Amino acid sequence: MVIVLHPSVTTEQIEELKAELEKGGCSAWPTYGEFQTIIGVVGSTHKLDKDKLASKNYVEKVLSVQEPYKKANRVFHPEDTVIPIGNQTIGGNKLTIIAGPCSVESESQILSVANQVKAAGAGFLRGGAYKPRTSPYSFQGLKEEGLELLKIARAETGLPIVSEIMSVSKLDKFVEDVDIIQIGARNMQNFDLLKAVGQTNKPILLKRGLCATIEELLMSAEYIMAEGNDNVILCERGIRTFETYTRNTLDLSAVLAIKKLSHLPVIIDPSHAAGKWWMVEALSKASIAVGADGLIIEVHNDPANASCDGPQSITPERFASLMGFLTQIAKIENRTI
Amino acid sequence: MVIVLHPSVTTEQIEELKAELEKGGCSAWPTYGEFQTIIGVVGSTHKLDKDKLASKNYVEKVLSVQEPYKKANRVFHPEDTVIPIGNQTIGGNKLTIIAGPCSVESESQILSVANQVKAAGAGFLRGGAYKPRTSPYSFQGLKEEGLELLKIARAETGLPIVSEIMSVSKLDKFVEDVDIIQIGARNMQNFDLLKAVGQTNKPILLKRGLCATIEELLMSAEYIMAEGNDNVILCERGIRTFETYTRNTLDLSAVLAIKKLSHLPVIIDPSHAAGKWWMVEALSKASIAVGADGLIIEVHNDPANASCDGPQSITPERFASLMGFLTQIAKIENRTI
Amino acid sequence: MVIVLHPSVTTEQIEELKAELEKGGCSAWPTYGEFQTIIGVVGSTHKLDKDKLASKNYVEKVLSVQEPYKKANRVFHPEDTVIPIGNQTIGGNKLTIIAGPCSVESESQILSVANQVKAAGAGFLRGGAYKPRTSPYSFQGLKEEGLELLKIARAETGLPIVSEIMSVSKLDKFVEDVDIIQIGARNMQNFDLLKAVGQTNKPILLKRGLCATIEELLMSAEYIMAEGNDNVILCERGIRTFETYTRNTLDLSAVLAIKKLSHLPVIIDPSHAAGKWWMVEALSKASIAVGADGLIIEVHNDPANASCDGPQSITPERFASLMGFLTQIAKIENRTI
Amino acid sequence: MVIVLHPSVTTEQIEELKAELEKGGCSAWPTYGEFQTIIGVVGSTHKLDKDKLASKNYVEKVLSVQEPYKKANRVFHPEDTVIPIGNQTIGGNKLTIIAGPCSVESESQILSVANQVKAAGAGFLRGGAYKPRTSPYSFQGLKEEGLELLKIARAETGLPIVSEIMSVSKLDKFVEDVDIIQIGARNMQNFDLLKAVGQTNKPILLKRGLCATIEELLMSAEYIMAEGNDNVILCERGIRTFETYTRNTLDLSAVLAIKKLSHLPVIIDPSHAAGKWWMVEALSKASIAVGADGLIIEVHNDPANASCDGPQSITPERFASLMGFLTQIAKIENRTI
Repeated sequence: MVIVLHPSVTTEQIEELKAELEKGGCSAWPTYGEFQTIIGVVGSTHKLDKDKLASKNYVEKVLSVQEPYKKANRVFHPEDTVIPIGNQTIGGNKLTIIAGPCSVESESQILSVANQVKAAGAGFLRGGAYKPRTSPYSFQGLKEEGLELLKIARAETGLPIVSEIMSVSKLDKFVEDVDIIQIGARNMQNFDLLKAVGQTNKPILLKRGLCATIEELLMSAEYIMAEGNDNVILCERGIRTFETYTRNTLDLSAVLAIKKLSHLPVIIDPSHAAGKWWMVEALSKASIAVGADGLIIEVHNDPANASCDGPQSITPERFASLMGFLTQIAKIENRTI
Repeated sequence: MVIVLHPSVTTEQIEELKAELEKGGCSAWPTYGEFQTIIGVVGSTHKLDKDKLASKNYVEKVLSVQEPYKKANRVFHPEDTVIPIGNQTIGGNKLTIIAGPCSVESESQILSVANQVKAAGAGFLRGGAYKPRTSPYSFQGLKEEGLELLKIARAETGLPIVSEIMSVSKLDKFVEDVDIIQIGARNMQNFDLLKAVGQTNKPILLKRGLCATIEELLMSAEYIMAEGNDNVILCERGIRTFETYTRNTLDLSAVLAIKKLSHLPVIIDPSHAAGKWWMVEALSKASIAVGADGLIIEVHNDPANASCDGPQSITPERFASLMGFLTQIAKIENRTI
Repeated sequence: MVIVLHPSVTTEQIEELKAELEKGGCSAWPTYGEFQTIIGVVGSTHKLDKDKLASKNYVEKVLSVQEPYKKANRVFHPEDTVIPIGNQTIGGNKLTIIAGPCSVESESQILSVANQVKAAGAGFLRGGAYKPRTSPYSFQGLKEEGLELLKIARAETGLPIVSEIMSVSKLDKFVEDVDIIQIGARNMQNFDLLKAVGQTNKPILLKRGLCATIEELLMSAEYIMAEGNDNVILCERGIRTFETYTRNTLDLSAVLAIKKLSHLPVIIDPSHAAGKWWMVEALSKASIAVGADGLIIEVHNDPANASCDGPQSITPERFASLMGFLTQIAKIENRTI
Repeated sequence: MVIVLHPSVTTEQIEELKAELEKGGCSAWPTYGEFQTIIGVVGSTHKLDKDKLASKNYVEKVLSVQEPYKKANRVFHPEDTVIPIGNQTIGGNKLTIIAGPCSVESESQILSVANQVKAAGAGFLRGGAYKPRTSPYSFQGLKEEGLELLKIARAETGLPIVSEIMSVSKLDKFVEDVDIIQIGARNMQNFDLLKAVGQTNKPILLKRGLCATIEELLMSAEYIMAEGNDNVILCERGIRTFETYTRNTLDLSAVLAIKKLSHLPVIIDPSHAAGKWWMVEALSKASIAVGADGLIIEVHNDPANASCDGPQSITPERFASLMGFLTQIAKIENRTI
């Protein structure tokens, strides 16, 4: 940590600050310039309260040098995390492909999609039972019935299932029913929910918020891990920018940043990022080429009649064709699907 | 609603679409151009599923003409909403000034601040008991004890109290204890929480999310109102932009937009917007000059030792001086504090 | 400046870096931590090349402590700059009100508007002769004829004139014809143009780019000042954000930031920020309340038939009424118009 | 185009509007709803002035249906544009790889890099002679001497050269000296410069502005093409967002959008997008996988001592290794390098 002092700071104030920092288990090294004094601080700086320091009237600003997360930080856990799920794994050399409809709509729909994505090589089935919708008047999901239908699809195909939780009150049911619990972008900073899923040992798929920085995403992962659950999979799904042609702007550089800063696996959701089905295949290829650990893709057998997100869903036929391309790109990087 | 069709659309497809729209209670009026056919749709268009229409392969895009919210919409409720709270009101001619510390820290702290802001003319006391913090290692609030201390301060000063809820599980306690329940920016699209508070009749202070559009904010208000609770107060508190000098960018134009689109009262939080105490006074003046219905300001008796948000808190002395200026600006617009 | 070193840095590399920094006229003070070494650098740090330092393989990041501008920096010029123009001034206690149409369209139009804004109390006349338009098919301004008409309006009203330059090749004419040369938002980083106007002694109205940070705006001012022209007036005119209801998002906090960082005067353009005439009056009031040094407002006698920017222009009648309000707000802050 | 009218509009106003639209060569088709009247407009709508229509007091908003560009529009030019340069082409099946240093620094430097990138398979040499720098105190390029050195490198390697123009006054020299004239991000809306290069027949590499929408980028291409020069190559180089870990956020979806909307070739600049050399290789692979027509990459033989942009330059060795990967990815899509 670096503390920049106001030009008018007195020697007494510097001594007082040094004493306070040392009491906090840190050591303070001042640099005296003509116009400015800077204090370099080392030690357990993550225990210092940056805001509190910045509130002092002789402090101009406080700059962080180290990342504020520990458990999610690659510095303290250099090797990649690999999360076992049934007889599969997420992270590491093998790519994770999660596919399925935005919402579970009926038994025939979810079975049809599940069988087709399995045949095409997907490793996991996604499907929304509880849906976060911008409008209270939009379809809100089949709820418990949706989870039941997902379980039927899992029983038939053997694919582990991924579904989004929206409320702590449903956590027990999710722990029992699904294989990976998804936290959606809008709940990335619903800290009560993060703490609650952190107290389970279920794999958690944590989506980046629409305007969350990479650091904030990692801090939300830290919330889960601080409670004891290390099985966190991160997901980049597009950020909000000034560009409105796409629903969001897919930030593929985030994969590289996250892999440098953290040991957690990171996958891409090209469907929500683009909001346009005809972009999904090309963005999926780019995601694998950039080094993501996998994809979560919306596949629907009848996009024009989907209950939600039809415009961004691809058909099972296109998904199967895409899988062929992805396998080839993965091979170039010595990865498998 | 306007539907733009793909140049290759056939007459049969147009007829099929018209029939579908009419079945949905709307009437459809095509405009035939050389390169493009456009369909104007009127009637109960808010019941149509825009995404579903956009999923058809002969539809190029769907443009909304009417706002997707009803209860929050000024078109259907032209006069301003005024919300009664105890012997006070929010909305209308009288400005609402809410002041107090970021977090409740101790009885002496909250009593001291409460007495001072009351003396300076504040109408409501704010104070955080449950705190949403980016880091799991930061102070998370005094929780239930914080609510108890707020009640003591209310008993002593008579000021109604405002505090933030983070979880549905605490709703009964909040309904009993506080006068205005705040939904923070990070929970603006926590739809379960919105529905739950919508089933009470408590006034709800709904803060705009960091990257929420004005329309999304109004849709979140609609979630609350759709459940039966019309007592919604909106709050602009800065949006996330590329500019990093300030914590967020205060969007004062949003006040004007919201007042045109909706009948709900709207107040400003200059403290969280700027993140710098020395900007709070000037931004407060600007907020009143632009026509906001009030302010929520962080005031702390010892900012340098505040448990949180010290850098953006002003002292009670500065708050008192600010109130003098605000009264004068309000007068110019024939409003009172 | 603070240099954060990679954990694997060697003692030789630190010594080499220290020597290089000292050769550059700076002194280097290392802080040794368990996981990280930080080097505090003081002295003529603005001469160091931050990028070059960051390119070294043992450097993790380089953090700036001091602002990279000198002439525009308040640290080295604590008192406010006041720019004399004819018998008027910009900056200081008196507010600057610049008003007029987006484009000069005809002699009768510009004379009519000029007379009316003068009568209402405006101090300067604005009018576009060369217009930067997004589309090559839109009206591009009356060009030289526009400048001639502005001169006629100046002769009749005595108001100094402000007009936008788009090309270095027209600079001599602008220096001769206008009183304040405007650099538009799209040319804020047209460095050739900045250098050229820097070699004149004309007052320059420099608008903030749509996505320029406050620091970049000040660096562009520095470009002009480094060539010898200190007469720079800054203008905030809205930044581009994800919100699309308004054309841009007016960033009033920027006024406060600029006044802290720099001694240059700063005015607000509410017309381009909002893009909606019905927001202009309220935003103008907020601008004065927040402490801006003035306003540049689009006024048109027939907005519905304006050649450009009709939707954001107010009528002379509304402008006159606004001036009354502004005078009252200014008074509260002991300023005059 | 669709015009949404205010609920209070009168029949006379609708008739007046229809007459005006018809006079403008369009036909107008009203849709009458209970709360709203919408007018669908077809014909030569690009000649209508959207702002002027929006200024009428009975018009609520004007929605565009067709893109405002013609020459750059794929609707009117369905096949991909392929631009011949010497014995090479840009666009079409063969990928374009442009490589070289940010700035030309010396004869030995540019010759060394040119020979190495040629050996690795690059098709074009880039090198800055005139450099747009945020600070007036930073290295501004070798200017004319830089162009001379580029010509020497071209003579030795046979690689066509690409360099950035910053001023109309240098255009004749650029037309004579370079093979592709680059317009940088900061000058994307320097309309005078766009018009000037539009009057040559040189290939123009037009970079997207930091906060330019895809539509604005295509409008800037239209400026060039409207003057008669159809040889425009577009370049995505990252946009400015709230995320600060990377210098900019690379928007790979833009490639897909541009290819749908326009027939012009589009390449990617991963170096400026990321600002970090260790991201360049992975982003390059993703760019080819997503379907870009090529890349422009900063390669420097000694990044730690580069005059500019060292932190984002890769070494010739890494570039050579990258070319191997790119060739394999291209093959999957039946493209060649």
